[in-house]
Amino acid sequence: MAKKEVAVGIDIGGTNTVFGFVDRDGNILGEDSLKTTHYDEVEVFVAALYEKIMVTGHKIGNGIEIIGFGIGAPMGNINKGTIEHAAGLPWKGIVPLAELFNRHTSHPVIVTNDANAAAVGEMIYGGAKDMRNFVVITLGTGLGSGFVIDGKLVYGHDGFAGEIGHTAIRPGDSNRDCGCGRKGCLETYVSATGLKRTLLKIMADSMQPSELRKFSFDELDAEKIHDAAKRGDYIAKRAFTHTGRMLGFKLADVVAHTNPEAIFLFGGLALAKDLIFEPAKEYMEENLLSIYKGKVKLLPSELSTQNAAVLGASSLVWSNRPS
Amino acid sequence: MAKKEVAVGIDIGGTNTVFGFVDRDGNILGEDSLKTTHYDEVEVFVAALYEKIMVTGHKIGNGIEIIGFGIGAPMGNINKGTIEHAAGLPWKGIVPLAELFNRHTSHPVIVTNDANAAAVGEMIYGGAKDMRNFVVITLGTGLGSGFVIDGKLVYGHDGFAGEIGHTAIRPGDSNRDCGCGRKGCLETYVSATGLKRTLLKIMADSMQPSELRKFSFDELDAEKIHDAAKRGDYIAKRAFTHTGRMLGFKLADVVAHTNPEAIFLFGGLALAKDLIFEPAKEYMEENLLSIYKGKVKLLPSELSTQNAAVLGASSLVWSNRPS
Repeated sequence: MAKKEVAVGIDIGGTNTVFGFVDRDGNILGEDSLKTTHYDEVEVFVAALYEKIMVTGHKIGNGIEIIGFGIGAPMGNINKGTIEHAAGLPWKGIVPLAELFNRHTSHPVIVTNDANAAAVGEMIYGGAKDMRNFVVITLGTGLGSGFVIDGKLVYGHDGFAGEIGHTAIRPGDSNRDCGCGRKGCLETYVSATGLKRTLLKIMADSMQPSELRKFSFDELDAEKIHDAAKRGDYIAKRAFTHTGRMLGFKLADVVAHTNPEAIFLFGGLALAKDLIFEPAKEYMEENLLSIYKGKVKLLPSELSTQNAAVLGASSLVWSNRPS
Repeated sequence: MAKKEVAVGIDIGGTNTVFGFVDRDGNILGEDSLKTTHYDEVEVFVAALYEKIMVTGHKIGNGIEIIGFGIGAPMGNINKGTIEHAAGLPWKGIVPLAELFNRHTSHPVIVTNDANAAAVGEMIYGGAKDMRNFVVITLGTGLGSGFVIDGKLVYGHDGFAGEIGHTAIRPGDSNRDCGCGRKGCLETYVSATGLKRTLLKIMADSMQPSELRKFSFDELDAEKIHDAAKRGDYIAKRAFTHTGRMLGFKLADVVAHTNPEAIFLFGGLALAKDLIFEPAKEYMEENLLSIYKGKVKLLPSELSTQNAAVLGASSLVWSNRPS
């Protein structure tokens, strides 16, 4: 009997690295993880990871055949198979990840960032199966984006396309420091942290009561703000509205640049549904040229948040397969 | 002897329609024009245009073979071969231009907007011959843009990709009316008209003398401001600096979205060279994430301004040819 083809999806995060064996339909047949932080040497990390993947594969049994490895990692460069200057990882400089992996395997190894992996995942397993032109925005601690044009992920000349999280909201006059060293990037407004920062500003300006006034900045998180907003908390709702509007404002730019069929929102903030989708949609439409108005869908991702990183990473393998 | 293959490039403007016979190297073998404004009926316009093209072809002689027609027009839609709601043309609504043309010829007829045509022209005949990922910005009365990704013009889902002229400089608080009906679009700052508007604002705020204070708004144009700036006029120079900065600010978004190898500036304002390139480059770099800094070239178009529209339109034919 023919063996079942599987792609190994690997998500390298600052704390944990998670991997899974995924079939063409997006079923995860086996998964495991290891602590990224335990490995100061990337060669040792890759060896340990590969070993653990083989052990998991062995447990699944000999009915499967690995066809490749897809890796999502911060600052993953798809052109070069490298991770470059990723602030949140233990390894500094330019890490030749695909090359290190290929010391253990001759299968294809594809590296990209999490948001690009999410975009390909949406196309292979999710809501963009029949789409040729779409964008995925990932809303987590930061804001990532992946562009698909004419059925292909956009890499760009240097392999770093899709960083709308680091476009500025306005010229010059923002006070919000960004982790990237500049000021006023979209990510400082539209992300779990951005939502919290906006909440604090509204709380400072407004006299309205709020159940969130009893929490410190450190204690606050997107979930608490979401819960408060669902209970009707005025300040929490306004923080979501402002966050959605800033997102919608820059999504209008995305539309004017590449005219996608749909924009998918993925991740924690997207789970707040109407609280974020409504102001985002409204403000995007308001900022669109008439030829685009009413045409671009703003949709929730159809990848489950729980497995999305592994699914997205594994999808790179299917999408890069010669057809 | 084999006939020389030529593409017919047609540029439909609000006042004149210009066409030319162009060979693969970008040589124009013959050209002519007719008044767009003379034709209330688009069918009559197309018939007259086709007739005039045939006459010109006849004059060139029988050593040539037409392989197709490329048309640049405002609001030209490449997916559908239509012109849609172009404010500056005599024909309202959706005009099925390619279809009308194909009543006269069985050769391919490709329609797109001027900026997209300029982008393909840069790739076929100009400075982007060896590039796979670049963007062309056309600076005239308005601001247009064309994106090339992976060697192909980006059409978008609805055929209208590349309208960065109508992305907003900041959320909500701009006073500048745009021809598109909204406010604060990039085009209201970065275009011949935008330069003039900026000049007036600086003139209003500043007490500095300027040779331009003697001209009315109607009398002023980009050329007068350029000449004054070259002579060291403080206010004219500041108007250019502000215009370049606003351009650079939004070019940083272009880089963060699609990570091109180069951005080409084309048209009247681009002829002001350092006056516009220096502040644009400086402000673009200032607004770039570190992974992009110093990597993206900002270059003048290599198409001659005089023939660019016809060259760009003709290039569509070569680029759409099965290879």
